[in-house]
Order: sequence, then C-alpha cells, then structure tokens
Amino acid sequence: MSLIDLSKQVALGVDIGGTNTKFGIVNHRGEVLDKGNLRTDEYDKVEDFIDALYNHVQPLMEKHGAEKHFDGIGVGAPNANYYKGTIELAPNLPWKGVIPFAELMTAKFNLRCTVTNDANAAALGEMLFGAARGMKDFIMITLGTGVGSGIIANGSLIYGHDGFAGELGHTIVKPGGRKHWSTGSEGSLEAYASATGITITAKKMRAEFPESMLNQYPEDAINSKTVYECAIKEDPIAIEVFRYTGQKLGEALANFVMFSSPEAILLFGGVIKAGDFILKPAKLHMERNLLPIFRNKVKLVFSELDEADAAILGASALVWEK
Amino acid sequence: MSLIDLSKQVALGVDIGGTNTKFGIVNHRGEVLDKGNLRTDEYDKVEDFIDALYNHVQPLMEKHGAEKHFDGIGVGAPNANYYKGTIELAPNLPWKGVIPFAELMTAKFNLRCTVTNDANAAALGEMLFGAARGMKDFIMITLGTGVGSGIIANGSLIYGHDGFAGELGHTIVKPGGRKHWSTGSEGSLEAYASATGITITAKKMRAEFPESMLNQYPEDAINSKTVYECAIKEDPIAIEVFRYTGQKLGEALANFVMFSSPEAILLFGGVIKAGDFILKPAKLHMERNLLPIFRNKVKLVFSELDEADAAILGASALVWEK
Repeated sequence: MSLIDLSKQVALGVDIGGTNTKFGIVNHRGEVLDKGNLRTDEYDKVEDFIDALYNHVQPLMEKHGAEKHFDGIGVGAPNANYYKGTIELAPNLPWKGVIPFAELMTAKFNLRCTVTNDANAAALGEMLFGAARGMKDFIMITLGTGVGSGIIANGSLIYGHDGFAGELGHTIVKPGGRKHWSTGSEGSLEAYASATGITITAKKMRAEFPESMLNQYPEDAINSKTVYECAIKEDPIAIEVFRYTGQKLGEALANFVMFSSPEAILLFGGVIKAGDFILKPAKLHMERNLLPIFRNKVKLVFSELDEADAAILGASALVWEK
Repeated sequence: MSLIDLSKQVALGVDIGGTNTKFGIVNHRGEVLDKGNLRTDEYDKVEDFIDALYNHVQPLMEKHGAEKHFDGIGVGAPNANYYKGTIELAPNLPWKGVIPFAELMTAKFNLRCTVTNDANAAALGEMLFGAARGMKDFIMITLGTGVGSGIIANGSLIYGHDGFAGELGHTIVKPGGRKHWSTGSEGSLEAYASATGITITAKKMRAEFPESMLNQYPEDAINSKTVYECAIKEDPIAIEVFRYTGQKLGEALANFVMFSSPEAILLFGGVIKAGDFILKPAKLHMERNLLPIFRNKVKLVFSELDEADAAILGASALVWEK
C-alpha cells in the first residue's frame, strides 16, 4: 500500500522578515495547523538562527509527526534565490554575503527546502489558497514598508534567468524623481507607494499646507496610519497624499499590464488599509495609461488571505508548487 | 512505417505588414527554401487577400509538395491574438474589426494555422534560429516604424491572460511626456525610440540648433537614416538625437529587466542601423537604473537574423513551438 494520503501531507512554511520570523505547519487545504515565531534580528550568525528556529519548530513537528508526513520546507525571505537556494546580500537581514540557506536548513531538519523572495511566496499562496485560485496570469504587489512583487505567467512564477525576477517596486515611475533612501535610484515605485514613501509624501504636503489636520501630529507620528486617520476625517491634504500615491501606483500598474497582460493584480500589505483612498486613483491612472486593447479587463483587487497567515501559507505553497 | 522524417517537414511562414506581406517555406533548420511577397493594402476584404495569398503560395507548395510535408502555417501580424486566432482592431491593416484569420486560412489552405503578433513571432524566430538559441529568458524589442516586443520566460512566449501581452512599446517612460501620434498616450517608449519618434526628436533639435548639419535637409527628408548620415559625419546634434533616444530606451529596458530578469535583450529593426550611437547610451542608462543585483548581467545585443528573412522565420517558428 503506497497510496499517498493527501490529508496527511503537511509542509513547514517559514517567512523571514528583518525583525521577526514566522513559521507554521500547513496542510494541502491551506489550513495553518500550528504556528509560532521568533526574532530574526537576535542572531548575528545564520547557523544560530537556524538552530533557534529548529528548537522552536521541533516540538510542533513532534506533536503532529505521528499522524502527518512532512513533505518539505518552504521559505520566503528577502533576496532569496529560488534556483540557488541562497539568500544574497539582503540589506535588512543580519547575515551578510551569500548564504546557502536551503542547504543549511536541509542539513538541520533533514527535509527538502525551497526558498524564494517573500513576494513570490505570497503570489504562490494567493494562487493555491487565495484570491487568485484558478488564475494562470496575475501579478501580486505587496505594499508594506517596501514594495515587493510576484509575477505568475502561464501558471508559473517568473524567476527569470538568475532567479531574481519580479522586482517591480524598483522600476522607475518618475525618471529623475524622488531619491530612494536605500538604493539611491531616482523615482522608483517603492519611493512613492510604500508606507515609507507615503510618510515622505505626507511630511512634504503638510509642510506646504499649514491648515492640514496632519499638522496636529508630531513629526515622528506621521505615517500611513495617521494619514488614514486624517483622510477618514476628510482632511483634503491627507486624501491628496493617498490620491498621489494611487496615481503613481496606477501609472506603474499600467506598464506592468502591458508587459504580461494579467487577469488580475492583487494588492497586499499594510498600505491597502487605506482602501479606496488609494484603490480608486490607482484604477483611474492604470486605465488611462493603458492601450485601449487592455482597458477594463484587469481586475484590481485586494488579497483575500489573512495577513497574519499569508506569509506562512505562501512559503508552504513553495513545497507543493510544480 | 510512421517514423517522422524531420528533414521533410516544412512550414509556411507569413508576415503581414501594413503595406507588404512576405511569405516563405521554411524547414526545421530555419532555411527559407522559397519565398515571395504581395501587397497587403490592395485588398479591402480579408477574403480577397487570403485568395491572393493562396494564388501566390500554391505554385511554391506544389513545387515542394512532392518531397516535403507541410506541417502548418504560422502568421505574424499586428494585433494578432494567439489564443483566438484573430486579428483584432489593427490600426494599420485594411481589415477592420475582429477577423477570424486563422480559421479563414485553414479553410482556404486546409492546414493548421497559428497567429501571433509580429514581434512575438520575431522572438520565437530568434529562439529557434537566431541569437537567442538555447536561452529560456529573453526579451526581443523591434525598433522600426513602431516599437514592438516579444517576451520569453521559462522558455515560452508570454501571451498573458488575453493573448495580448508584450506591448512594451506602449509602456510609459516619461509620464506626461510626448503625445503619441496614434494612441494619444503621453510619454510612451514608442513615442521616443521608434523611427517615427527619432524623426520627431531630430526635427525639434535641429530647430533649436541652427548650426546642426540636420538643417541642410528639407523637412520631409529628416528621418533616422539622415540623422545617421549626419552622426557619422560627427554632427553633435545628430549624435545627441541618438543619445537621447538611447537614454529613453535604456531607462525602459531597466524596468523590463527588473520585471522578468532576462538573460539578454535582443534589439531588431531598422533603427538598430544607428549602432553604437544608440546602443552605448541605452546600455549606460539601463545599467544605472538597475538595482545592483541586476547590474552587468544582461546582454544587450542586436539580432543575428537576416532582416529580410527574420519575419518569415519567426512566423514559421510558430508552427513548431511547443
């Protein structure tokens, strides 16, 4: 009897962020059976981090191990390379250089390990378990502290020649525009549409318009959350901050659509809490920059996955992606 | 005996342009065994065009038919939809509306017919027979009267959800920039990097700089060819026309690289006769707009295919693409 019982197959999904790492045990239906987390930034050596992760995960694996079969480990991490299993030169992780992360994980856990960048993992999660179920062509944009992306075409993630495809946050939307605080590039999407970019826009605009409600906050309290608070109280400057952000996002989306002609663009991450304040101008400026042949075809929607679990689900989806 | 003898298999490749249509009989090695052409713009009805094409092709098919097996027909045409076999709303073809072109061709020729846009066909031709042999991820940019593109990822053309992916010529490189003469969009790559765009740039610049050699030509003689003539005679304004064109192209290419991370970008079409006058600034501005992780990795090269045959080869490649 070697029939595979899918209901017994589980994967370990790991999402590595600059500050925290989340992990969970996920089944084929996208249910998180158990989960936990640890600090990323407390481990200067990657080997120590993997030891600590193992110590956190091991009790959960033992608890489920009697009745479940572990198929493998999927890891979403910044600058992770799917082809090589490495994490390379990630600016916001404590481990420098090129880390053979998948190899180190396999040595410790004795399980096959696949890595990709966090936004690619999120896109897979949406395709297997979320709003993109059944879609073969879509783009996932994560709007958080930064702007990430995962691109699905012909039913597969686009990794590109070197495994680093899908850095849409770093495409230039305004040549010679705002200088990026970290990359130094001028006018990238991330410089405008990330939470960091929104904060910069808000600080500039409140300085220009003393009557704005945004001036009731101290400088270091200005962020996408406080802009939202002012926007729902109908402060026109706060609304304009989001409208401008949505315009830049929409202009970028038009270019992405003319590249890969997706069925949908899924937006994900903290910034989407601004809802229609960003979505409506984004849609408007996407449509007006499209060739007629592409207009009113592409769904622009928010992710359906629970944000707390999405990263874990996405990472675990790596194990089952073919 | 049902073994297939590849040396006997041939395809009919057809390249439909606004003025002329070229066709050829092509074998598996990418050799054009026979070819011909007819006017496109003389046939107001698509049925009449297909009848005329048949009358041109039929004698060649009979000539080769005794020893060759015709596998099918591949057609490259503007606004052709691979999924539906249609040519849709092509602004520079005489046939209006949505034309079921593949179906009409099959009815006439009794052969399977596959259509795609001309730049996609060119990309396939490069992958099977040209500079992109063996590559699984590359982008083909055709710089002619307009700017077209074909994108190969994971070894396949990206058609997108609706079959119209890869309209990189219409992506916006300068928001609010030059208005496109036909689409009305502002600041598209095609408005700058096509032969038409170069002519516009040259006319503007020679008006600004009376000392330019470009002012020795009558207005209607200004085009990418005369700009080239002045550039090789070291007219700084003519050189600046190409440098500016190359800059806009390079900025666009950087965005494309961060989308799909190709191994190479192949440039094709009349405009590339300007050679290094365009290629060097394009490379410079591509590299400087890339994230470090992508720098000095992407080959920027000219097509190797003979321009007269490339379109036919590309169209025939459609028949054998899996």
